[in-house]
Amino acid sequence: MSDEFERWRELGQQMRVDSIRAAAAAGSGHPTSSMSAADLMAVLLAKYLRYDFDQPTEPLNDHLVFSKGHASPLLYALYKAAGAISDAELLSFRKLGSRLEGHPTPGIPWVDVATGSLGQGLPCGVGLALAGKRLDRVPYRVWVLCGDSEMAEGSIWEAFDHAGHEQLDNLIAIIDVNRLGQRGETMLGWDTDAYVRRAQAFGWRAIEIDGHDVGEIDRAYEQALAGDGRPVAIIARTVKGKGVAAVENRNGFHGKPLADPEAAIRELGGPRELTVRASAPAGDAQPHRFETHEAPAASWKVGEEVATRRGFGEALAALAASNDRIVALDGEVGNSTYTELFAAGHPDRYFEMYIAEQQLVATAVGFQVRGWVPFAATFAAFLSRAYDFIRMAAVSRADIRLVGSHCGVSIGEDGPSQMGLEDIAALRAVHGSTVLYPCCANQTAKLVQAMAVQPGISYLRTTRAATPVLYAADEEFEIGGSRVVRSSDRDQVTLVAAGITLHEALAAADELAAEKVAARVVDLYSVKPIDERTLIEAAEATGLIVTVEDHHAEGGVGDAVLEVFADHTSRPRIVTLAVRVMPTSGTPAELLAQAGIDRTHIAQTVRELLPAAGTPTPRPNR
Amino acid sequence: MSDEFERWRELGQQMRVDSIRAAAAAGSGHPTSSMSAADLMAVLLAKYLRYDFDQPTEPLNDHLVFSKGHASPLLYALYKAAGAISDAELLSFRKLGSRLEGHPTPGIPWVDVATGSLGQGLPCGVGLALAGKRLDRVPYRVWVLCGDSEMAEGSIWEAFDHAGHEQLDNLIAIIDVNRLGQRGETMLGWDTDAYVRRAQAFGWRAIEIDGHDVGEIDRAYEQALAGDGRPVAIIARTVKGKGVAAVENRNGFHGKPLADPEAAIRELGGPRELTVRASAPAGDAQPHRFETHEAPAASWKVGEEVATRRGFGEALAALAASNDRIVALDGEVGNSTYTELFAAGHPDRYFEMYIAEQQLVATAVGFQVRGWVPFAATFAAFLSRAYDFIRMAAVSRADIRLVGSHCGVSIGEDGPSQMGLEDIAALRAVHGSTVLYPCCANQTAKLVQAMAVQPGISYLRTTRAATPVLYAADEEFEIGGSRVVRSSDRDQVTLVAAGITLHEALAAADELAAEKVAARVVDLYSVKPIDERTLIEAAEATGLIVTVEDHHAEGGVGDAVLEVFADHTSRPRIVTLAVRVMPTSGTPAELLAQAGIDRTHIAQTVRELLPAAGTPTPRPNR
Repeated sequence: MSDEFERWRELGQQMRVDSIRAAAAAGSGHPTSSMSAADLMAVLLAKYLRYDFDQPTEPLNDHLVFSKGHASPLLYALYKAAGAISDAELLSFRKLGSRLEGHPTPGIPWVDVATGSLGQGLPCGVGLALAGKRLDRVPYRVWVLCGDSEMAEGSIWEAFDHAGHEQLDNLIAIIDVNRLGQRGETMLGWDTDAYVRRAQAFGWRAIEIDGHDVGEIDRAYEQALAGDGRPVAIIARTVKGKGVAAVENRNGFHGKPLADPEAAIRELGGPRELTVRASAPAGDAQPHRFETHEAPAASWKVGEEVATRRGFGEALAALAASNDRIVALDGEVGNSTYTELFAAGHPDRYFEMYIAEQQLVATAVGFQVRGWVPFAATFAAFLSRAYDFIRMAAVSRADIRLVGSHCGVSIGEDGPSQMGLEDIAALRAVHGSTVLYPCCANQTAKLVQAMAVQPGISYLRTTRAATPVLYAADEEFEIGGSRVVRSSDRDQVTLVAAGITLHEALAAADELAAEKVAARVVDLYSVKPIDERTLIEAAEATGLIVTVEDHHAEGGVGDAVLEVFADHTSRPRIVTLAVRVMPTSGTPAELLAQAGIDRTHIAQTVRELLPAAGTPTPRPNR
Repeated sequence: MSDEFERWRELGQQMRVDSIRAAAAAGSGHPTSSMSAADLMAVLLAKYLRYDFDQPTEPLNDHLVFSKGHASPLLYALYKAAGAISDAELLSFRKLGSRLEGHPTPGIPWVDVATGSLGQGLPCGVGLALAGKRLDRVPYRVWVLCGDSEMAEGSIWEAFDHAGHEQLDNLIAIIDVNRLGQRGETMLGWDTDAYVRRAQAFGWRAIEIDGHDVGEIDRAYEQALAGDGRPVAIIARTVKGKGVAAVENRNGFHGKPLADPEAAIRELGGPRELTVRASAPAGDAQPHRFETHEAPAASWKVGEEVATRRGFGEALAALAASNDRIVALDGEVGNSTYTELFAAGHPDRYFEMYIAEQQLVATAVGFQVRGWVPFAATFAAFLSRAYDFIRMAAVSRADIRLVGSHCGVSIGEDGPSQMGLEDIAALRAVHGSTVLYPCCANQTAKLVQAMAVQPGISYLRTTRAATPVLYAADEEFEIGGSRVVRSSDRDQVTLVAAGITLHEALAAADELAAEKVAARVVDLYSVKPIDERTLIEAAEATGLIVTVEDHHAEGGVGDAVLEVFADHTSRPRIVTLAVRVMPTSGTPAELLAQAGIDRTHIAQTVRELLPAAGTPTPRPNR
């Protein structure tokens, strides 16, 4: 026993030394934040973590998430101790081309989710634990190392709330209470009782320990595994910079390499060369096998009045019948986004996340780590609550599908707090994202199918109001495509719209046709990626483009179209109609008019742009 | 006493009836969510709220925030009962042109902050209460009506955390536990003990009551006013739709008018015409008087190497010496954003919000309600955590200043989790926002001064790296302006940049000059509003624009420039250099090169665009 304790202490010292060495080699990093948690990770690796580092994709492996991602030197020191990386690679920390970045990313095979924006690792861990309990149904455990500073993030309490509610006793949060944040003491300092009370109030089991006593750590992990239906929080009182007097428990040493690493390493007893083989994953369990089945897709008759939000709900429910990887997550608005239709048919794959959008997205990120295909839906406006999680999901190389309903002023009476008017701008700016905005239920159904196999962050924007089905159920719609809904060989203007404004644009085109003005109408259902060819053809044919969107002017459909022509030889005149007012309450029709994006304003804009109705417009670029 | 109780009950019934009438007149709205809280608001208005409805700007008025903004019919019924609005106006609810919108906004003089995105009213209330305690130092109280569904939002627990930590016993949260959310039961249902345990764990006093027993409500408010240093949560068990059997405690009636309003009103005993005069505000207290003083502004010598983030910190500290309305809020990174320099000089106006960006922004919103001028600073990347709060701050017509440091790949080794690469897109899309991106400390100082008097949401983007001071301390920089840093009468290309890339653009211009290629360089420090005239002049002079930004390609500087020329007669060729890769760790120089936005790539881009160096470029638009 005492030999074992001594080995664990030595392993902890080695990881401290290696954290200091990595940061010294990089000239930056967070050694002191690593040193406080070294003993906690040493015991975990040596005795409790069940993980085959040679098989990172083994479905029975435990999951280890560093929610305090800045302690990456410790994580990489652990990988070295586990024999997963060499000492030479450890010392490539933070260098260009090294997979050992300043904060962990899934560029490393043993990392599930990127961390570094605090308060996100634990919510993603909740998603992983929920998948283990309710989807994969295998006994892996999810170990999450949290910092004490990040306990101030509301997202941490969304995670505590959901883990307690879902009784995730396969989730163990290890809170490294080292008292010191980046700039000084945390709100609670070493008041570990306060953390215990909070964890218990959210339905967790809390175990308070000295995070440097390997015996107490061992007992805490052992108790944690005696699952009683509650997730476990190990509240570990630790010392930042533990083991090196120059920095130990002192403010002002966050996020810097040590001034004298050699002396510090000597003080810690010098380098060690211990390697530890982690325990094997639980071998007898049967991982989930995905299946596909024949099942009809949702479809509607042309001309039927169906809201695209409803089209999404029916399409997703139908798709789930054919593909058992599909899961749906609801932000307590399933009767508005219509995920409730999925819940009726597939309750086992439906997850109610309540009004907690950060946890909503984090759960989706956790699920896709396990190979599931999550669709997370709420109001488009409320996805802004999870924008940092969406940004980080891209860093995690996560494949998640987000659905935002109630976009734009066309929702009507509820007013601006409920209107998604920044969502296209925000989602377009996410690296590698896909932004889709259908105008008809059949089109929505095809795009939902496409999203299911689309990598990265894909976003579907749906409309509250019922709109007529425009396209036949057998028409195909690809990501990156568009549809010319109306055209002739004498078109004088191109109207580019999507979603609700596509219907307004068609009505405007009818008005103009009665005045002998031919307008081409392009349905830009794929805002990103965008169909450059069709837009360029339209520009060359008409020389004049009017974009119409139920979204603020910045970063939306108009900007996406402008980008196409920025450096192109034909640069048409482009007039962008968008929401430039602060909307109020009113009927959808009144608010579309108030914003100047309804049929009447579109038609009037074209009349003013064309010198004399009926005569072809001049081509400034020809 | 029992007469008084009876009057309160009657007042509650009147507010139920009026909520039903308002929703019936509108054809939409949330009467059942209003009915559960009617008795709570009746007793508050009749006995405890200290408010002069004739003087909404009276600094000693209490503050009443409906965090459950969808209960707006109840709020408006309360205004009617207080004699503030007429019955006719009550019935204009949700109609175009009415100030009584679907969710409350400050278009109404008695509303401090817009609500409707749940979990935001309480955090804003924390800001109001904190201002009362530590800035205004007057004894108003802040009453916040919360729904039980919104208790699942992490932001609510950020608010609990901070209110407990700051000992805000002038804050009373009234939790309307009506058990039912939009689509079904809440996570905790009527488990009011769970709410009590959580509130207490965060340092609050919790009082559990029957929310329909006016005697218990009265006692609870009375106890709440006996301040003991803890904020108070009144956990009120209520019934959704209380008083009308057809909807009482039944699922499926959220957010709809009653099917038979006449029958419901009869069941409630018919309309009443009670009016109640709220108590007068605490009259003896002395509200804060703002003062200005002479004090030197921060300035630097041209050529000095100073990071703009440091320029911001010094400039804000200097400005605060001359203007005592200025307050600073830190997201636990004050040693990185340099708000720590403000803390040193003005500790009484410095607020540590720890790692809780939603509460950081909400506190700023609360402060500006009271006439203070808040600057809230964290990493640009982490402002994305508060995006929904920023969006709602615009609906609140709030004047707040946000500062995001560590923007772009130029931060270097820390990697993508710490890089603000979507912030310009996100902030530009906010209604009425201002987006500033300085390249030099003196310029930063001028922009900080301009932000202090700028209405709406203004955002300053600062850089981690030290860069040379370009402009003399006496140069003026206005919002909406730009600066032509280099030009000649034979310029062949215009480089448009800001912040770190402005320095790269100047270096590229030097390289090109050595090759006899004249490049105009525009410092676009004001991204929104944008200086159209200077850009158009440059376009007409050179016909070719290259934009360079340390931000993702969508929604940033490039799109802002494209918008200028969309519908302009001269439409130059525009090439946009931006971050189109997922960055990694590396040195700032390596990452600027990796993203193709460094001096070398800028110069090479120009070489490739100009047919033969030294000869003027063709003008496709002439």
